[in-house]
Amino acid sequence: MSVSASMAVLVLAAGRGTRMKSVLPKVLLPLLEEPLLSYPLRALAGLGLDQVAAVVGHEGERVEAYLKKSWPSTKVLWQREQKGTGHAVLVGRDWWKAFDHLLVLPGDVPLLSAPALRSLAEGHFRSRADATFLSIELDDPAGYGRVVRSPQGLRIVEHRDASAEERAIREVNSGVYLFKTAALDEALSELSCDNSQGEYYLTDVIPAIARKGGFVEASLWDRADDLAGVNDPLQLAALGRTLRDRILASWMAAGVKCIDPESVWVGPRVMLAPDVFLDPHVQLWGATEVGEGSRIGSFSVLRDARIGRFVEIVGHVHVRESTLRDGAKAGPFSFIRDGAEMREESFVGRFVEVKKSVIGEKSKVPHLSYIGDASVGEGTNIGAGTITCNYDGKNKHETHIGKDCFIGSDTMLVAPLTVGDRAVIGAGSVITHDVPEGALAVARARQRLIEGWEEKKKGKKD
Amino acid sequence: MSVSASMAVLVLAAGRGTRMKSVLPKVLLPLLEEPLLSYPLRALAGLGLDQVAAVVGHEGERVEAYLKKSWPSTKVLWQREQKGTGHAVLVGRDWWKAFDHLLVLPGDVPLLSAPALRSLAEGHFRSRADATFLSIELDDPAGYGRVVRSPQGLRIVEHRDASAEERAIREVNSGVYLFKTAALDEALSELSCDNSQGEYYLTDVIPAIARKGGFVEASLWDRADDLAGVNDPLQLAALGRTLRDRILASWMAAGVKCIDPESVWVGPRVMLAPDVFLDPHVQLWGATEVGEGSRIGSFSVLRDARIGRFVEIVGHVHVRESTLRDGAKAGPFSFIRDGAEMREESFVGRFVEVKKSVIGEKSKVPHLSYIGDASVGEGTNIGAGTITCNYDGKNKHETHIGKDCFIGSDTMLVAPLTVGDRAVIGAGSVITHDVPEGALAVARARQRLIEGWEEKKKGKKD
Amino acid sequence: MSVSASMAVLVLAAGRGTRMKSVLPKVLLPLLEEPLLSYPLRALAGLGLDQVAAVVGHEGERVEAYLKKSWPSTKVLWQREQKGTGHAVLVGRDWWKAFDHLLVLPGDVPLLSAPALRSLAEGHFRSRADATFLSIELDDPAGYGRVVRSPQGLRIVEHRDASAEERAIREVNSGVYLFKTAALDEALSELSCDNSQGEYYLTDVIPAIARKGGFVEASLWDRADDLAGVNDPLQLAALGRTLRDRILASWMAAGVKCIDPESVWVGPRVMLAPDVFLDPHVQLWGATEVGEGSRIGSFSVLRDARIGRFVEIVGHVHVRESTLRDGAKAGPFSFIRDGAEMREESFVGRFVEVKKSVIGEKSKVPHLSYIGDASVGEGTNIGAGTITCNYDGKNKHETHIGKDCFIGSDTMLVAPLTVGDRAVIGAGSVITHDVPEGALAVARARQRLIEGWEEKKKGKKD
Repeated sequence: MSVSASMAVLVLAAGRGTRMKSVLPKVLLPLLEEPLLSYPLRALAGLGLDQVAAVVGHEGERVEAYLKKSWPSTKVLWQREQKGTGHAVLVGRDWWKAFDHLLVLPGDVPLLSAPALRSLAEGHFRSRADATFLSIELDDPAGYGRVVRSPQGLRIVEHRDASAEERAIREVNSGVYLFKTAALDEALSELSCDNSQGEYYLTDVIPAIARKGGFVEASLWDRADDLAGVNDPLQLAALGRTLRDRILASWMAAGVKCIDPESVWVGPRVMLAPDVFLDPHVQLWGATEVGEGSRIGSFSVLRDARIGRFVEIVGHVHVRESTLRDGAKAGPFSFIRDGAEMREESFVGRFVEVKKSVIGEKSKVPHLSYIGDASVGEGTNIGAGTITCNYDGKNKHETHIGKDCFIGSDTMLVAPLTVGDRAVIGAGSVITHDVPEGALAVARARQRLIEGWEEKKKGKKD
Repeated sequence: MSVSASMAVLVLAAGRGTRMKSVLPKVLLPLLEEPLLSYPLRALAGLGLDQVAAVVGHEGERVEAYLKKSWPSTKVLWQREQKGTGHAVLVGRDWWKAFDHLLVLPGDVPLLSAPALRSLAEGHFRSRADATFLSIELDDPAGYGRVVRSPQGLRIVEHRDASAEERAIREVNSGVYLFKTAALDEALSELSCDNSQGEYYLTDVIPAIARKGGFVEASLWDRADDLAGVNDPLQLAALGRTLRDRILASWMAAGVKCIDPESVWVGPRVMLAPDVFLDPHVQLWGATEVGEGSRIGSFSVLRDARIGRFVEIVGHVHVRESTLRDGAKAGPFSFIRDGAEMREESFVGRFVEVKKSVIGEKSKVPHLSYIGDASVGEGTNIGAGTITCNYDGKNKHETHIGKDCFIGSDTMLVAPLTVGDRAVIGAGSVITHDVPEGALAVARARQRLIEGWEEKKKGKKD
Repeated sequence: MSVSASMAVLVLAAGRGTRMKSVLPKVLLPLLEEPLLSYPLRALAGLGLDQVAAVVGHEGERVEAYLKKSWPSTKVLWQREQKGTGHAVLVGRDWWKAFDHLLVLPGDVPLLSAPALRSLAEGHFRSRADATFLSIELDDPAGYGRVVRSPQGLRIVEHRDASAEERAIREVNSGVYLFKTAALDEALSELSCDNSQGEYYLTDVIPAIARKGGFVEASLWDRADDLAGVNDPLQLAALGRTLRDRILASWMAAGVKCIDPESVWVGPRVMLAPDVFLDPHVQLWGATEVGEGSRIGSFSVLRDARIGRFVEIVGHVHVRESTLRDGAKAGPFSFIRDGAEMREESFVGRFVEVKKSVIGEKSKVPHLSYIGDASVGEGTNIGAGTITCNYDGKNKHETHIGKDCFIGSDTMLVAPLTVGDRAVIGAGSVITHDVPEGALAVARARQRLIEGWEEKKKGKKD
């Protein structure tokens, strides 16, 4: 939004959300695994708005901690007492007075999108209004403030004060406002908390501005769904499905193949190439990216995963903060986590966990292994049941395995340890000392036979 | 239901359910993993009705066995021949004659709830009727007996006998009755099986009572869904979803967070604290309980699991008849079963099975292990690939591991075995003898190296 | 379809499907894991039609390769240039001229069923028409050619040419035709590409035949859904769900119990006995068969699996091209693949992979094992952590284990290897030499103890 005038944004994030019955404040409840509050902040960032403050209150320390970590440029304003939305705006007055305009929006309206905000701003600046708010049309407007338009100008009539005729109006105030700060400042001064809740309502600012001769405008947004709030767990779930359906439909229109979109979850920050195949019951969360031609098999969960091109995730695979490069293959039943990197055409198979390790190009870890704090060179085969013993009870140590090695099944690699290129390790060995390039290492007892054992046992019993 | 008069209950559980095409009798088919018959029995128990009999017939031995095991106070009455609902009531006459009132309900109407039954009883006792039945209003009443109310009293007119005017009536007989036993007894005596099926119909008792001057009443229940029966697998599935949606909506209203309620199954006996998080594709069955702040990750199945507070089940976890205490963590890919107990803040990780074992406070079993018939003290670390060898081909034996131990990776613990507190076991060891407190035990061959092995192999081939 | 006259079939499979945004040609995109093109070919095979050709074009080599592999009797005709459906029929003229009748259908209409085609043929032969096409009635026919019936005969009026009155007609041409080849041949000769796309349209053949005095008929099919095409990923998903719902409803009517049909996927070639139980979130693909009384647990995926009677798949199990015989049990967390066979009442448990191996009757592989390229006799117990070391870095070798053996936990079986009947292997052994019948084999180091180790360690630190 390129506006010559200066604009600040206030996000109202102080509410408790009692009906949520949660220890978390409402704006930190997750929607598609992202806090509710992240949605307006991402929309604002997308619009290039960088003067943003959040008013925090209930469990405000948690909200402040989240903002510091994830949105450090967002200013935190404290509303110590919960005295209504008008009061929430009031507590930031010293800050926003320095700007020409102030956008005020609730922190619990996650589908509020950049286009809706852009439309509001365009209306505001076009009409040079003192205050503009987003309005929507509802099939059932009961309880909402109606937008009454007349030759004398525009009014909001609260539901309790509306005549039968006014109650028939379906256009209502959505609670998203854009003010000239001068007009807002003046109107706030005379705001009263003379109501049953004893709270200051921001909605009362609109008539106050009008009374002082200010010009008030409503900018109608035609997707009322975008303004839906979240008041209880059922609404949160409903909103999640709406958002999920929108995200998936958008990716499918771009070419993503998903045979059962109603069973698939894709978070708002995920990026997918066209011609990605998503099998039923797949979840992609966080900042996951998936490249062209890759297939994500059923019952897999990817969080902050970078998946290259033509990767095959067979199914039942968890990937967390890790990278699978082009042509890599994983699953079923794999767990790849915490900075692991699977290089091109490498393979991690059944009942295999890879943590904070590099698996080299075309290397394979097919079965029943734990590879942690390790590097594996290219073209190496890790036998079934191999374990990097990276923990000595106090500290974690590293294992380095070279290229073109053959690690026999059930090998214990007691870290710190280095295995040179082309080394061979015999099955069932506990390797405690480094293995030079091209060497064979074995640590195993000789096989002994007791013939007729089964007969003897039987004999004893008789 | 506190009634001064004595009341008995007859549950009709003799039907075959031909269209189910099942070897199981219909009333034992599972709905949310509980037999259909358990639903009315649970509702009756909730009302404090304790004189309950079930009429069994088709595959009656199975039904009788189920009742003996799960509802031992329920009397079993045999209907050896399938001669209709009237006949089913008749076979119990000797038993129910001793009571003042008899409630008769079908065993395949699982959504029939305590409030509906309470409403029926209240109507019955208020009006002092000789017979009262629950009626419902259907959008499409075709096939059902219509409730015809007139100044002369109330009649049930069967669909085949109804006039066009009567067919327009939407109020129908639901098949749930409350009788004065004296009136029922008298009416049954003149019941005839003079119809195309050659069966005795309980519905014919109502006009019989009326004919004798008895007072007949209908108690309208406004949730017709509650009386839906189950006649084929599609209806069974539909009913399951209805019940599932009701259960979940009720928990979510109580504060449970569930982002995808359409993919989650919670059985009727499950108990959830507010602020439990259920990820998509989770199943909670049986008598599972989950405490405050706990999260159940996707693709997990819990049966008869007791989950404490702030437990984290990462995903892909099966828990069966086991306990996870406060702050415990499991998954992904864990199987915890058969009386296992994870103490406070313990951890069971990837590809780990725990059976009938105690994992002590803050102890960890992170990877690829099988712990069966064992106890692990507090603060102990079990290395990857550790196995309790609890089976000798004939019997199972126990393993006891003390506190603050360090069990190296790939340790075989050959039971019976005791490992003392603070003991250390070297990776790759087969432990066959007890390990004293604080001792180090190792059973491992020395590592041997053959340098240049890879060159030699090449040489051989050339 | 028994017709005295000779009939050939032309399937149009040359299109690109631009909006699919796929590297695959449209007709090879999977629907319920089968290529779109397989659907009409299966329907035709079901009708006994064996003179079938497919016109290929875009990515035609891929389509040709698929046909050669899966439908080798289907003739491949190349349309090198994409010049419309009329042109596609033209390129096959030399082939189909030898037959009396030609059925022409699109390759991307997967729900087009044998009954619809049989109805078309019956109409065609009954009326002795020169050309008959399947018509359907659409709620919104915009864009389709309307079927205008009048005393003068039947016409197709394209949407752009239709009057307001004609546009109100809901009966439209579905694009499936049955021609007398002589009439088609003559009409094609005068087909023109004088239109905005510069293409030859097959629909123009109908008026051409009529102009020459030929008799044209429309055969109305009342399930318009059957003729739905696939133009983008959203339509592909929608069609998949429709087909899935139809398949499941049909199996459930036959007695299959499925508590959550909206989460279950069953492919078109799967065969289920009555009284099969499908838990939520199950997928059955390919030529999978499941016998009576078997239960498939949640989060399982079966591809080309043959499941016998009373098999229990606990959940989280992948089966691929393998057989589980009567009474076998698997899971949770098992992977059974590539020609594996579980004999009667055998058991494969947690974190176990079985590849191309036979598990004998009543034998057990309960935990954490990899059995590959092996045979296991009956009544044998495989301890947890057992691995067949079948790969030496170059080749795969076989392991043969007899009956009634006891293989201790963590046994490495270095193939090629034979273990005789009733042999016993000690836990933690690496077995490199054959074990005779009834012998005990052990390869393990003696356990050593260092008492007071924990004290010494502490001492060092002080």
